[in-house]
Amino acid sequence: MTLTAATPAFAESLRPHLPARAFRDPEPRYLEEPRGRWAGQAGVIVAPETTAQVAAVIRAAAEARVPVVPYGGGTGLVGGQVMPDGPAPVLLSLERMAAIRAVYPRENLLIAEAGAILSDVHDAATAEQRVFPLSIASKGSARIGGTLATNAGGVNVLRYGNARDLCLGIEAVLPDGRIWNGLSRLRKDNTGYDLRDLLIGSEGTLGVITAATLKLFAQPAAEGTALMVVDSPAAALDLLALARDHLGEGISAFELMHRTGLQFLAETLPDIRQPFATPPEWFVLIDLGLARGLDPAEALERLFGAGLEAGLVSDGLIAQSQAQRTAFWEVREQIPEANRRIGSVSSHDISVPLGAIPDFIARATARITGLGEFRVNCFGHLGDGNLHFNVFPAPGRSKATYAGQRGAVQQAVHDLVHELQGSISAEHGIGRLKVSDLERYGDPVKLELMRSLKSLFDPAGIMNPGAVLRQIQASF
Amino acid sequence: MTLTAATPAFAESLRPHLPARAFRDPEPRYLEEPRGRWAGQAGVIVAPETTAQVAAVIRAAAEARVPVVPYGGGTGLVGGQVMPDGPAPVLLSLERMAAIRAVYPRENLLIAEAGAILSDVHDAATAEQRVFPLSIASKGSARIGGTLATNAGGVNVLRYGNARDLCLGIEAVLPDGRIWNGLSRLRKDNTGYDLRDLLIGSEGTLGVITAATLKLFAQPAAEGTALMVVDSPAAALDLLALARDHLGEGISAFELMHRTGLQFLAETLPDIRQPFATPPEWFVLIDLGLARGLDPAEALERLFGAGLEAGLVSDGLIAQSQAQRTAFWEVREQIPEANRRIGSVSSHDISVPLGAIPDFIARATARITGLGEFRVNCFGHLGDGNLHFNVFPAPGRSKATYAGQRGAVQQAVHDLVHELQGSISAEHGIGRLKVSDLERYGDPVKLELMRSLKSLFDPAGIMNPGAVLRQIQASF
Repeated sequence: MTLTAATPAFAESLRPHLPARAFRDPEPRYLEEPRGRWAGQAGVIVAPETTAQVAAVIRAAAEARVPVVPYGGGTGLVGGQVMPDGPAPVLLSLERMAAIRAVYPRENLLIAEAGAILSDVHDAATAEQRVFPLSIASKGSARIGGTLATNAGGVNVLRYGNARDLCLGIEAVLPDGRIWNGLSRLRKDNTGYDLRDLLIGSEGTLGVITAATLKLFAQPAAEGTALMVVDSPAAALDLLALARDHLGEGISAFELMHRTGLQFLAETLPDIRQPFATPPEWFVLIDLGLARGLDPAEALERLFGAGLEAGLVSDGLIAQSQAQRTAFWEVREQIPEANRRIGSVSSHDISVPLGAIPDFIARATARITGLGEFRVNCFGHLGDGNLHFNVFPAPGRSKATYAGQRGAVQQAVHDLVHELQGSISAEHGIGRLKVSDLERYGDPVKLELMRSLKSLFDPAGIMNPGAVLRQIQASF
Repeated sequence: MTLTAATPAFAESLRPHLPARAFRDPEPRYLEEPRGRWAGQAGVIVAPETTAQVAAVIRAAAEARVPVVPYGGGTGLVGGQVMPDGPAPVLLSLERMAAIRAVYPRENLLIAEAGAILSDVHDAATAEQRVFPLSIASKGSARIGGTLATNAGGVNVLRYGNARDLCLGIEAVLPDGRIWNGLSRLRKDNTGYDLRDLLIGSEGTLGVITAATLKLFAQPAAEGTALMVVDSPAAALDLLALARDHLGEGISAFELMHRTGLQFLAETLPDIRQPFATPPEWFVLIDLGLARGLDPAEALERLFGAGLEAGLVSDGLIAQSQAQRTAFWEVREQIPEANRRIGSVSSHDISVPLGAIPDFIARATARITGLGEFRVNCFGHLGDGNLHFNVFPAPGRSKATYAGQRGAVQQAVHDLVHELQGSISAEHGIGRLKVSDLERYGDPVKLELMRSLKSLFDPAGIMNPGAVLRQIQASF
């Protein structure tokens, strides 16, 4: 039995279960994605207000074999939130389930509905002198359900882990409409299989997360930031090891940047203050969050001194004020915007084993150079082995002139990542963008298991069809 | 089709795949478990030396429908490693796959085979000035495969997480003999469903873990330990929050103990030095691992001062030497041995939300007191919400006289745990001991999903039958 489109008749079948305001107009925002690669479609758009209403929608969709596309903030970069072809789905927006249900400061956790916006979760934590550390560029519009569905990363993974690590439990609606209440507030619970981590990162293909218990942390007593010039990516790795010897888990972020990033900022965002008089080839941003009794600026000076002695760093800037910290971070945070303005031929969100990073950067750059005239801007979360290796037109040339080369660029990068036992999607997920890549590079046994799990959870194949796994025609 | 026993003929069928030395004699150690509740059985005992040999054994078992019991260090406390009834299984010991395959200090990880003994992993980390923080009482005999299969906890979960949190990837043999190579060295990899976390904690019922990538950490620059007397469990929780405000993730352990623990030590292990002249009702052990620039004794003094000011602590001892640290830890670490010597009526490895701990302790103690004359020794990993709430005979009475009450004691404790949204197995797992408890207290939707997953991975039901889930007769 094949899937069928969400028709007006299907919408009618939902009316007994949903208030009238839950039916949404087809505003363009629901059908766009940030990179503009796909146009989505939707036969019906609903925004339920309760978990029971979500379950009613899914049950109806399962009965009618209507595809369901769960929709959070719409900020995903791999097309997991748009279904461009096939029968028009019911788009299930979580935007009206945006409550922070409860905050437990003593337990260092809160319970948020899937539609809660990431920055609202930050604010709820701050109000109790706590931190929810997951932070990504789209935090003002990304919603918790989506960050969990894609196991989002960001700049604090080094210290606090990714979305999966920050979640104690979830409530979810399964593809047959059953509600699983796994909203645990427990730090330790060894009673059976880990279903939470199976749904987290499954990009809406195994069910819809409707709420989550999220871990909070004590606010660091003091924070500090430095930019340090390193000789090479290898020196940056050694500096990271040195920093860990000095400061253990006090390192909140360790980000690598290249001169090209500074050049792109100068070209496209000239108001951003350039930190160095002479832009260095490679430099790192180090962010600390320390316990009471330690002065971050002193700790960074000691680290810089040790790095200088070890021949790892040659220059450095230590923020002397919160304004300077913000300025240093702005350099890092505006690089993606500068990239967007330059316009990439191909972007790659990859990870490799930490020790393979220098080799990866050297060989990937050589392979790209061998393909033609390009500019490479490589930057990212060095401490996580996660680089954004982005390829741009040579100066004066337009992106359009490279249209025929994008595939070759991407394959050159991904083949090398695979050789080095890396991942072709470190933090963005598979979505619809990387389905073929997963098939090409993924472990065959893992892929077989994933397909089996998909069939087990969602035999009719209604949940986000075509995301993560190529759509298999359901027949039974 | 039902399961069949591992006969000599089955052993013969394995001979082409295994060296002669892989066939083991039925030494008693393979068929015992630490609490002596069950006697195991085994038709054949094999100790393969390679993953391919493990796969050959599982393939043969799957074909012949012979049950497989994976066997690590045999230290599990819930009977997951012994199959006392049904057709005699092939016992698959990982003891000859005990290699540390590789250590990557720069990447803060190592790859260990499943049979590697936990303390050998500690040593391999120490040799590279790193820490592998998972530590449990049985570390000298527990093997990595078993600690992952049971998602083991221990005293450092507060800071570093449990076994699942410390594992980047696994290699496993599935119930049909396929090998899944998921030995990732990546910190971030969002390419598909999380199969790793599904196998971790599944207690050998979904496959056999044969190797794992384990996270290492920088050694703290300085460590310190204190015992602090608190007014109540509630004050202990507030002290924990205060300690986090002061020291963030610098707190490695935060353990609650009761006067009864000191009394049991005095009665059964009089050589252990009693830390307090007058034993306090409640006290905590706080262990710190700090960054450079901080003195642990000073930090503990500051914390004690703040606790005193807040009315949370009334007395305290701060270790002034490594010998004193060891002595403080010995108090905590010998309590389980003292318990063993006293002989419990019933032991409970439970967790509740942190905020519910004071309520749990008060109400559980009242319920037990209501059932008869008992002594309660409640202690454990306060920071994780994980308590060992153990119930003992009144002084002068023997365990045997309580035989008829054990069930009522256990149910009183577990019912309360369930009311408070806690877990009846915080860190030991389900094994065979708690299968009925899981059925009684587990979320029904989760249980249905678990049974579906078991059928998907292991349709013949050969993998550790009767552990975690009641054995379902396979028929197809």
